[in-house]
Amino acid sequence: MSRSSSEVATRRNENSGPLRALSGGSSRAVERRMLHALGRMVGSPPLRIELWDGAGVGPEGSEGRIRIEDRGALYHLAAQPNMGFGDLFSAGRIHVDGRLPDVLETLFGSLHRARDDRSALVNRFLEAKPQSGANQRAARKNIHHHYDLGNDFYRLWLDSEAMQYTCAYFETPELTLEQAQRAKMEHVCRKLQLQPGQEVIEAGCGWGGLARYMAREYGVRVRSYNISREQLDFARQKAKEEGLDDRVEYIEDDYRNIDGHCDAFVSVGMLEHVGPANYGEFARVIERCLDPAGRGLIHTIGRNRPAGMHAWIEKRIFPGAHPPAIGEFMDLFESANLSVQDVENLRLHYAQTLEHWLERFDEHQEQVRSWYDEEFVRAWRLYLAGSIASFRVGTLQLFQTTFAPAQNNELPGNRHYLYGQPATEPGGSLD
Amino acid sequence: MSRSSSEVATRRNENSGPLRALSGGSSRAVERRMLHALGRMVGSPPLRIELWDGAGVGPEGSEGRIRIEDRGALYHLAAQPNMGFGDLFSAGRIHVDGRLPDVLETLFGSLHRARDDRSALVNRFLEAKPQSGANQRAARKNIHHHYDLGNDFYRLWLDSEAMQYTCAYFETPELTLEQAQRAKMEHVCRKLQLQPGQEVIEAGCGWGGLARYMAREYGVRVRSYNISREQLDFARQKAKEEGLDDRVEYIEDDYRNIDGHCDAFVSVGMLEHVGPANYGEFARVIERCLDPAGRGLIHTIGRNRPAGMHAWIEKRIFPGAHPPAIGEFMDLFESANLSVQDVENLRLHYAQTLEHWLERFDEHQEQVRSWYDEEFVRAWRLYLAGSIASFRVGTLQLFQTTFAPAQNNELPGNRHYLYGQPATEPGGSLD
Repeated sequence: MSRSSSEVATRRNENSGPLRALSGGSSRAVERRMLHALGRMVGSPPLRIELWDGAGVGPEGSEGRIRIEDRGALYHLAAQPNMGFGDLFSAGRIHVDGRLPDVLETLFGSLHRARDDRSALVNRFLEAKPQSGANQRAARKNIHHHYDLGNDFYRLWLDSEAMQYTCAYFETPELTLEQAQRAKMEHVCRKLQLQPGQEVIEAGCGWGGLARYMAREYGVRVRSYNISREQLDFARQKAKEEGLDDRVEYIEDDYRNIDGHCDAFVSVGMLEHVGPANYGEFARVIERCLDPAGRGLIHTIGRNRPAGMHAWIEKRIFPGAHPPAIGEFMDLFESANLSVQDVENLRLHYAQTLEHWLERFDEHQEQVRSWYDEEFVRAWRLYLAGSIASFRVGTLQLFQTTFAPAQNNELPGNRHYLYGQPATEPGGSLD
Repeated sequence: MSRSSSEVATRRNENSGPLRALSGGSSRAVERRMLHALGRMVGSPPLRIELWDGAGVGPEGSEGRIRIEDRGALYHLAAQPNMGFGDLFSAGRIHVDGRLPDVLETLFGSLHRARDDRSALVNRFLEAKPQSGANQRAARKNIHHHYDLGNDFYRLWLDSEAMQYTCAYFETPELTLEQAQRAKMEHVCRKLQLQPGQEVIEAGCGWGGLARYMAREYGVRVRSYNISREQLDFARQKAKEEGLDDRVEYIEDDYRNIDGHCDAFVSVGMLEHVGPANYGEFARVIERCLDPAGRGLIHTIGRNRPAGMHAWIEKRIFPGAHPPAIGEFMDLFESANLSVQDVENLRLHYAQTLEHWLERFDEHQEQVRSWYDEEFVRAWRLYLAGSIASFRVGTLQLFQTTFAPAQNNELPGNRHYLYGQPATEPGGSLD
């Protein structure tokens, strides 16, 4: 696999990069005071935080340890804590001993509690970039940045069957990642009450796994939109191989240009990239296409209350992303003639999904390092482990929202139809 | 039963009452033009709308017919359509032929579509009173107005077992009202995952049926708050009769004064009376009481988008009520450290509940008329039938929202626990 540059993935060499390393020696009294101040800023977590010479705060012998490796790193972290931690960790100038997701969960939990105590300082660690919706050109650039890292890269650690880069559904905890991703697709199909011959529009289809599942297991016709070229090439190839290309059409276009009619509208993991400023436009697209007797589902990362994306994630990993609170994405339904039927929060399912991804990523570290470099590996481990921690402490949520046109009275009377048989068995609603 | 005055129920004789009846004779050309204008204002529904002399608009021979009985009624309706229709109907100066809920569903559906066409005029029919939250004194007055009509009155047409004046759960459509109200309580208990010995706080308990159900079927201790004296007297008497008074305490106080600890917080049919301005205060009450490992549920009438209560209902039937859109009541959870786990929309269950209520009300019309008067009977029939129509056309929704403290990770992995056995069989989660 050829990679033009690892910058595609982490945008590391921009002018906001960390101070260069300043060699250590013994820490000075002022530096130890800075360390204590940093410890208090993050809510004094039950973790050991140390300087390069072993001076530290927090309980010795604690499960997790964070080490700041040089003087420049300390100064940079104090000056720019929100960007600094990620950049310095990626550069190998902050080290974490202990299992990374667990240490981060302890750290984030502490930050979370400190923020609830309304500490002003702590916000410097959590600071976010204000987000406005991306226009079509910016959207393409943002999506290219993240998703066009290459199919080979994602294939290393996503589920092997459908390459779904979204939260799986661990209906029972012991499912494999492949089973849980299948269960997620099945759960979505049941919520949409798909019937053979119906037409489905999908906004944002990743590598196209859900579209093929719907066509194969439910006998529907699907038109799936995406603006990531590499993903679409893969998706089309797969559909051809599986003999589904007469029922699944993958279209390279922005969600704003979706047209035509559908009985079901589905979008899994795209709303994060739409941005609140564009929810009204997205709503009009759905309203225009969806049959009055239809159903829809939007699956998105979200929050308990509105907040911007963490600045480091936004800048280095996921430009343009905004996980909305329910109150924010209700704008979408309220601005159209749509009625919310069901919201299900699958937060801890995403923590479990990410555990699988991190485990597989770690199994392929050597491969990733050979394609990119050590900094890329460390940045992605921080992103995956940090996401696990964020879902576990509740900074992030995962909402699946089912909706229908407001005048649709052909609604199921209860939700037994979702639970009649395990979601690992496909085609539940065809019986 | 002694009634001081039917004003308690309908506040009819205030200065905004309708013009006195002006005797008919033949309608004039200008009056027929007014009628045509009114027909267009309400979106030209497939209904016959007639004047006292038979002049009319809309298809002759249609299923439903609305007749304006005198000249004064026409002028009043044209001048104040939002209050006028209800007041004139109650006074017997507008008559409806055909089944009242069906005619109103046709009329409201037409109004609804007309509003979506952004007609300015139609809003005069739908005009709402702006709502701000009631303080404790106003809350008492509002609640007294509606709920202290007397237990004897509500007993005539609510379910005989628990007198629940909230949406039932018709898990299957053929359930009786009593079965469906039991199923609702069971569904709520399962969502709360009650375990024996746990403590529950209930905000707004009506006649106390849910509290007794929780104590009896799930072995929990319940403290239930209400500010309606007559309801509380009834609830306490019932708890004593059923030997539950050691486990259920009914407290006459405002929700703002709730204190103590609970494992589960529940509120069914109270949020409508809280008002958006008070959601933050309500949230702080929940946050203060609810165990970090706890769960909560709020069941409320709602809307697809924010709107005030219809002015006639607000003034004559339900002062101070405001059914919120999801985006509005998310303020409650966002302002506290609470995470929404599940939202279920039970809209059509409320239409079905109301059908049962109207049927029973009609069976006891004579009794109600003898206690109050004809105007009261007509006003309440309009309110019940109009509510059926509103739920059927989607002007109103019914949301059951389950939530948990944000840091609670002891969450069920899926919703099978709600659907393991029919909700008509109690004690589902004790097995």
